[in-house]
Amino acid sequence: MPHFTIEYSANIDKRVDMAAVVELVRKAAVETGIFPVGGIRVRAIKCEHYAIADGNPQLGFLSMVLRLGEGRDLPARQKAGEHIFKALSTHLDPVFANSKFALSFDMQINDKETSWKRNNIHEALKVEAAHG
Amino acid sequence: MPHFTIEYSANIDKRVDMAAVVELVRKAAVETGIFPVGGIRVRAIKCEHYAIADGNPQLGFLSMVLRLGEGRDLPARQKAGEHIFKALSTHLDPVFANSKFALSFDMQINDKETSWKRNNIHEALKVEAAHG
Amino acid sequence: MPHFTIEYSANIDKRVDMAAVVELVRKAAVETGIFPVGGIRVRAIKCEHYAIADGNPQLGFLSMVLRLGEGRDLPARQKAGEHIFKALSTHLDPVFANSKFALSFDMQINDKETSWKRNNIHEALKVEAAHG
Repeated sequence: MPHFTIEYSANIDKRVDMAAVVELVRKAAVETGIFPVGGIRVRAIKCEHYAIADGNPQLGFLSMVLRLGEGRDLPARQKAGEHIFKALSTHLDPVFANSKFALSFDMQINDKETSWKRNNIHEALKVEAAHG
Repeated sequence: MPHFTIEYSANIDKRVDMAAVVELVRKAAVETGIFPVGGIRVRAIKCEHYAIADGNPQLGFLSMVLRLGEGRDLPARQKAGEHIFKALSTHLDPVFANSKFALSFDMQINDKETSWKRNNIHEALKVEAAHG
Repeated sequence: MPHFTIEYSANIDKRVDMAAVVELVRKAAVETGIFPVGGIRVRAIKCEHYAIADGNPQLGFLSMVLRLGEGRDLPARQKAGEHIFKALSTHLDPVFANSKFALSFDMQINDKETSWKRNNIHEALKVEAAHG
C-alpha cells in the first residue's frame, strides 16, 4: 500500500538527480521493515509553475506525502517516518548548503473501507525469493 | 465534486492508452448514478521518476485517488467504488498478463466546511438536455 | 506549511498564464496573514489526459488543494479560504465567460504527529528583513 508522492519545483531538476531520490526513498522504506516490499511505490512529479514564500524564483521545494494503509500504530509510523525523512534530508544537504530550500514530509492514512487494489508484484517477488 | 486523480509510472505509457483510461473512468463514474455528471473530473499525471517494490525498472503502477464531497453513506461509496475499480481493472487485464503491475484505488472525503467551487458546466448540460 | 497544489486540464494552458496563477495564489495566501511567508509553496501540475462531465473535450477544470498544518480554527481557515478563492475565481472570470469550466478549492489538515520539515527560507527572509 505505501504510496510516496513527491512534488518538486522544476528549478531543482538541475541540482538534484530525481531518479536517485525516488530510489533512495524506496530503499529507506524497505529498511523500515513495516511495509511489504511489493507494495512500495515512490514517484516524483515535476512542477513547472510554482511560487514560493516571497516569490523569489531562486527558492525551491520538495514535498513528499506518504499514503499508507491502516493497521500501524503511531510510534511505528513515527519511527518509519523519521528514518525515511533523515535519509532524504541528508541526501539533500548540498541543496540546503547552496540554496534556499523547503523540504517536507507528511503521512496520510487511507480508509480501508474504501480501498481497492490488484497487484501481481508480491507474487513475483515470492517466486524470485524461492528460486533466487 | 468527484475528482479522480491518476498517477502512473511513465513506463506504462507505451502499453496503455491513457486517454482511453480517463474516459473509461469517467463513464464508469457516470454509471454509478451517485455523482452529478457536471462535477466529474478525471485526470492522469505521468510520473517520469519512480521506484517500485524491489526497484526493478520493469515494474509499473497506476494509482487512483477519488476525492468526493460529503453526503454519501459508506455502502453507496463502496458500491460505486467497486463498479469503477472493476471497470478499470478489467481494462488493465492485458497489463497484468504481460507485466508485473500494481493497481490501486482509494477514496478521500472533502470537508464541506472548507470547500469552494464555481462551475458553469452543470448549467450547460441542462441547456443541452432541454434542447437536445 | 501551507502547500497549494493545483491540477488543471492541459486545454486551458493557452488561455491561462499559469505562472501568473501560482503567483496570484501565493500573494493571496500572504494577504490572509495566517501563514508564515517562508512556508508558502504553490505549484501547478498540467494534466495532459483528462475526461470531464459528459466527456466533451472543450470542457476544462482547475482544482486546487491546500494542505496546511494544525492549529488554526475553522473560522480562520474559512476566512482565509474565501479570500484566496475569491482572488483566484475573479482572475479566471474570462475563462468562465468564454468556456465551460469547473474551478474548485479544498483544504486538508496535516497530522502534526507525522509531519517532518526542514526549511532555510524562514531564516533567509528574516535576514533580508533585518538588512532590507
